[in-house]
Amino acid sequence: VISPTNSSTTQPIELRSDNAAGAAVEILHAVAAANSGSALAYGADDWSAQLQRRVSDVFEHPDAVVIPVVTGTAANALGLSAICPPWGAVLCHETAHILRSECGATSLLCGGAVMRGVTGESYKLSAAGLADAFAATRWGDNHHSQPSVLSFTQPTDFGTIYSVAEIAELASSAHERGLRVHLDGARIANAIVALGCSPAELTWRAGIDVFSLGATKNGAVTTDAIVCFDPAIAAELHYRVKRSGHVPSKMRFQSAQLEAYLADGLWLRLAAQANSAMARLAAGLRHLGVELLAEPDVNMLFGRVSPATLERMESAGLLFYAMGADIFRFVTSFETTLVEVDEVLSRMADAVAG
Amino acid sequence: VISPTNSSTTQPIELRSDNAAGAAVEILHAVAAANSGSALAYGADDWSAQLQRRVSDVFEHPDAVVIPVVTGTAANALGLSAICPPWGAVLCHETAHILRSECGATSLLCGGAVMRGVTGESYKLSAAGLADAFAATRWGDNHHSQPSVLSFTQPTDFGTIYSVAEIAELASSAHERGLRVHLDGARIANAIVALGCSPAELTWRAGIDVFSLGATKNGAVTTDAIVCFDPAIAAELHYRVKRSGHVPSKMRFQSAQLEAYLADGLWLRLAAQANSAMARLAAGLRHLGVELLAEPDVNMLFGRVSPATLERMESAGLLFYAMGADIFRFVTSFETTLVEVDEVLSRMADAVAG
Amino acid sequence: VISPTNSSTTQPIELRSDNAAGAAVEILHAVAAANSGSALAYGADDWSAQLQRRVSDVFEHPDAVVIPVVTGTAANALGLSAICPPWGAVLCHETAHILRSECGATSLLCGGAVMRGVTGESYKLSAAGLADAFAATRWGDNHHSQPSVLSFTQPTDFGTIYSVAEIAELASSAHERGLRVHLDGARIANAIVALGCSPAELTWRAGIDVFSLGATKNGAVTTDAIVCFDPAIAAELHYRVKRSGHVPSKMRFQSAQLEAYLADGLWLRLAAQANSAMARLAAGLRHLGVELLAEPDVNMLFGRVSPATLERMESAGLLFYAMGADIFRFVTSFETTLVEVDEVLSRMADAVAG
Amino acid sequence: VISPTNSSTTQPIELRSDNAAGAAVEILHAVAAANSGSALAYGADDWSAQLQRRVSDVFEHPDAVVIPVVTGTAANALGLSAICPPWGAVLCHETAHILRSECGATSLLCGGAVMRGVTGESYKLSAAGLADAFAATRWGDNHHSQPSVLSFTQPTDFGTIYSVAEIAELASSAHERGLRVHLDGARIANAIVALGCSPAELTWRAGIDVFSLGATKNGAVTTDAIVCFDPAIAAELHYRVKRSGHVPSKMRFQSAQLEAYLADGLWLRLAAQANSAMARLAAGLRHLGVELLAEPDVNMLFGRVSPATLERMESAGLLFYAMGADIFRFVTSFETTLVEVDEVLSRMADAVAG
Repeated sequence: VISPTNSSTTQPIELRSDNAAGAAVEILHAVAAANSGSALAYGADDWSAQLQRRVSDVFEHPDAVVIPVVTGTAANALGLSAICPPWGAVLCHETAHILRSECGATSLLCGGAVMRGVTGESYKLSAAGLADAFAATRWGDNHHSQPSVLSFTQPTDFGTIYSVAEIAELASSAHERGLRVHLDGARIANAIVALGCSPAELTWRAGIDVFSLGATKNGAVTTDAIVCFDPAIAAELHYRVKRSGHVPSKMRFQSAQLEAYLADGLWLRLAAQANSAMARLAAGLRHLGVELLAEPDVNMLFGRVSPATLERMESAGLLFYAMGADIFRFVTSFETTLVEVDEVLSRMADAVAG
Repeated sequence: VISPTNSSTTQPIELRSDNAAGAAVEILHAVAAANSGSALAYGADDWSAQLQRRVSDVFEHPDAVVIPVVTGTAANALGLSAICPPWGAVLCHETAHILRSECGATSLLCGGAVMRGVTGESYKLSAAGLADAFAATRWGDNHHSQPSVLSFTQPTDFGTIYSVAEIAELASSAHERGLRVHLDGARIANAIVALGCSPAELTWRAGIDVFSLGATKNGAVTTDAIVCFDPAIAAELHYRVKRSGHVPSKMRFQSAQLEAYLADGLWLRLAAQANSAMARLAAGLRHLGVELLAEPDVNMLFGRVSPATLERMESAGLLFYAMGADIFRFVTSFETTLVEVDEVLSRMADAVAG
Repeated sequence: VISPTNSSTTQPIELRSDNAAGAAVEILHAVAAANSGSALAYGADDWSAQLQRRVSDVFEHPDAVVIPVVTGTAANALGLSAICPPWGAVLCHETAHILRSECGATSLLCGGAVMRGVTGESYKLSAAGLADAFAATRWGDNHHSQPSVLSFTQPTDFGTIYSVAEIAELASSAHERGLRVHLDGARIANAIVALGCSPAELTWRAGIDVFSLGATKNGAVTTDAIVCFDPAIAAELHYRVKRSGHVPSKMRFQSAQLEAYLADGLWLRLAAQANSAMARLAAGLRHLGVELLAEPDVNMLFGRVSPATLERMESAGLLFYAMGADIFRFVTSFETTLVEVDEVLSRMADAVAG
Repeated sequence: VISPTNSSTTQPIELRSDNAAGAAVEILHAVAAANSGSALAYGADDWSAQLQRRVSDVFEHPDAVVIPVVTGTAANALGLSAICPPWGAVLCHETAHILRSECGATSLLCGGAVMRGVTGESYKLSAAGLADAFAATRWGDNHHSQPSVLSFTQPTDFGTIYSVAEIAELASSAHERGLRVHLDGARIANAIVALGCSPAELTWRAGIDVFSLGATKNGAVTTDAIVCFDPAIAAELHYRVKRSGHVPSKMRFQSAQLEAYLADGLWLRLAAQANSAMARLAAGLRHLGVELLAEPDVNMLFGRVSPATLERMESAGLLFYAMGADIFRFVTSFETTLVEVDEVLSRMADAVAG
């Protein structure tokens, strides 16, 4: 279990979560700029139309459809509800956010579907784990919830990432068995930056049918989004988003955020800032002799220190989550500056020294 | 059926809906001001704490709990889900928004509960209609969805309002039969202003158990809210909002909007602007000899003109909804200026003259 | 509201409901005969295979699929769930059993869909009522539950019947708008007998996509059934019946009942007995000068007498339901004998005479 | 995965499942006897009233309420729905029938609740597994489905049983944390016989709040049942059974089965026959040198033989399920005679000899 630490009298430095960051000024400005005259509600506005074009461009797909929703949980559960029948099972890693941290939203919005945890190292779905899940399935037997969707988390909640090839291979296996493929992209920009791939390569070209386009953790104010590439999925979502209360009347203020986020590569620049801050932080920690549980792929790092060091870290005003007595998690965000990183490393040097 | 009109080359004037208005600058400023440092997600922030105190103060109730949600549909359906069992029936007026315009959100989020339309003049629930609904109920018979909630819309979607006494009397009848009482307050500020009552008088003092606090139609950017006065209802909502994807991670940006909205009476001033613009508009129309279907109580008006006049109104750049060939609906908002009202009246004079 | 009457010392005669009748001996014998050796569970038995063939033969359709379920409510709600999306609306007469007397089962099993009452005389859907419902629909607007199914009750709960042509015309209108068509046939055998049509003529040839094949009210012990004519509907039902707990392990005992019911026209003979008993009863009542609210089409009759007569009827041991002070409902069943009818008429003569 | 074997020309002997057995003649007679005159529908009949008294007597609890339902899946999912909120998690063994073999019925009927598999040896919940599940829970955190019910399967689907003390201890731990306790008693009679305890000792005295009273696998024709001991649970079930289509109109034919089943200890005699047939079978197999994976506690046995022996067993007309190439499962039922057991052993002797 994770318990938050308290700040000291020193100026605290935020390393708890990218959720704790604020909003990017470009996106705040876009919200203000959208406050211009009247506009029809529920998405029949110019900002929302522009956003559709932007998503088609950025993801290089003519049928890409984007639907702004207020949370990643809504994006995941609604996206899944469009491709999983009520009697279906969503296969995901046993540590997936949809399984562990969304209070059953997927079961609710899929009309009673179930989720099944699949094993795999590094918090990632594996070919072997998927094969086991398939082998354990009595296909066509109505006593069994039928595997209907494979859901990736990219990056995982533990900061690891799939290669494009890994996703493509697993997605292909899923499609062969008639499943559809979903991706929880709460931090997808961080993964795209880390992989150096294009948005299309990581999504539909790799076999993703629908995904959650995370924005809030990376600078948006009040919006994430669902993106799909199939008009049939979009048609389902058209009604499902409304009946779950996820169609804001003043949609322009959501659409404008996403438009600013995706325009001119802002989303990737913001993610790059978080990733590179983490890279510098990891290098510095290694230099200090701190044990890292894994090399950080994106903007999240787990390390092990002595319990006493952990306490000194807390006292030094580092805001982070501890897991047990000696494991700490650091998360950087688009707001994390290099000055802050160096200050963290300075405090860590003291904490480690004792 | 309502069909939108098109603007002409003349500068259009927005009278379609208060949903088409933008955001109040005070609320936009509050969003920007909340972008200040890091803050824990999901409501564990100072802005959200301050909002709780504000709602307790404004509604004069120590147990008032406010939960920001992104839409009025979410506020209604989730609020209802906390007080209606899955086998229950929500009684509401046969023209209620929850019954007609929310795509069954209440049935979804209440786990399959049903809604039943009750008759009453002026689009309002009536004692006779409620008595009929009760008389038609086989209480305790499990073949029948059991009336469990009475839901008001205040003001109604047609711009009429209940007096405080009317609500209190109907709510009392409902409570006597074991029902709980809900209020859809998408435009509640307009009703409070029109009635000259206090927020407490229109809600818990009149017997309301939970209500939707509309803000978006009246100047907020991206938030409405649920308010309840009973810790048991709040406890249910704690989980229900999460599992339907309605807990924004950067809650501070929602809470800050509502705090600005309620602080210093901003919400009532904004509503007063919309109401008084409508009052001036109605007086002017009557002066022009236009038939009003009813005296507007808040910021909405229905009038009848000849089909030819209706066409001329469209050509004159008035943005409004027509219902059939000769009925028009005008809605003012907090953004409607007196200059605009006078310009509308000027164009109406020409349109009526032919 | 309906209140049951009490029996007197005289031998009571059952006229409350065909639900109060017992089981036909042929069907009881079939249950006993199915207790023969071991057989795989869940429908993988010879009796169930034979029933599938029987239903194809009786309904003259190669793709007819029958699924035994334990109640008419299950048959209706599950049948509807296979053709109504969660955001859909089921249009039915405002007095339909699914709307009034099934505790929201359709909303539950359709994942939150809604039901909408349509007006029409004689408790029947009308072309005008359907046209009104269509006209009131904002097609494609996601604020509105979309009409997705038209559901008939044949005969209605008030004993009236549609002609084959009436059903075909309304079903055609529904199909034109993209709706599917369902029929609640809790007493379908009585309607087939009354109309003198074939089972195929009243169902798929008239445009019915899926229907509830009532059996319990007409002699079965513990089973009704769903019948559909489209493999895609059957595929949906395959899982939906299981996940709602409606796949009996010893299915043979359900299938055997339905096989006996449909074989050699037993179901029609049983219904004919109920209908003809009612015809004789109605003729006798008219002869006695009793006012009938309508000519009975099947096995149900409503009459008006003085309150004093109603009391004498109760004292005379007639078991029936009264509606208000002067209306009575008589229902005959396959068990009602002509001797009983004559005894009812004799007691009625006394009751009327005072 | 389990695949069924085929019978040979030899007279087949049923060892696949107790689901494949027929009905006990005493129970069939009770159905026929209930076909006596008219009776009100939906449980307002004498047989159902008598059954309530019988269940109170047999389970020695004044508030025991029994609700006949047509399947074990319905009994489980509905029983759980009365004690698990929609945001809850049902903790059960990772091999539990509700988790593996009911197509998500619990998630559907609990309104989107989830099930979580807990580890434990011998297919049984363990104190350590439950402690782990509790430790992994973030209590009160609305991101997490909250453990709300602990569900036992007694005996397990693999034929092992809990002692009364084991159930009582785990149930006590669950109650301490605010969970309610459910038991899937699809074969509860076999467990009661094996343990030599009273029905009360295994249920409410051990802390069970609601349980599924299996009857179909042990001689009933078309019914299982839910039993609870708390009027508040019964009140919930009153509506929940109806809205899921689980209230048969001719309830007397279900109630009469259960009354005959419970009267005079028939259910325990039938279970004792199945258990003792299995005991004799196990002793004989051990005598033949067949490896048993565990000593059978009730009426189910798993053994390992060579693949060639497995094939000879199939050829010898033994009907059973194979799991992989060398594991077989034998299940006896109340219909299994000692003559059959000896014949099975004779054929096994030949099969083993090769």
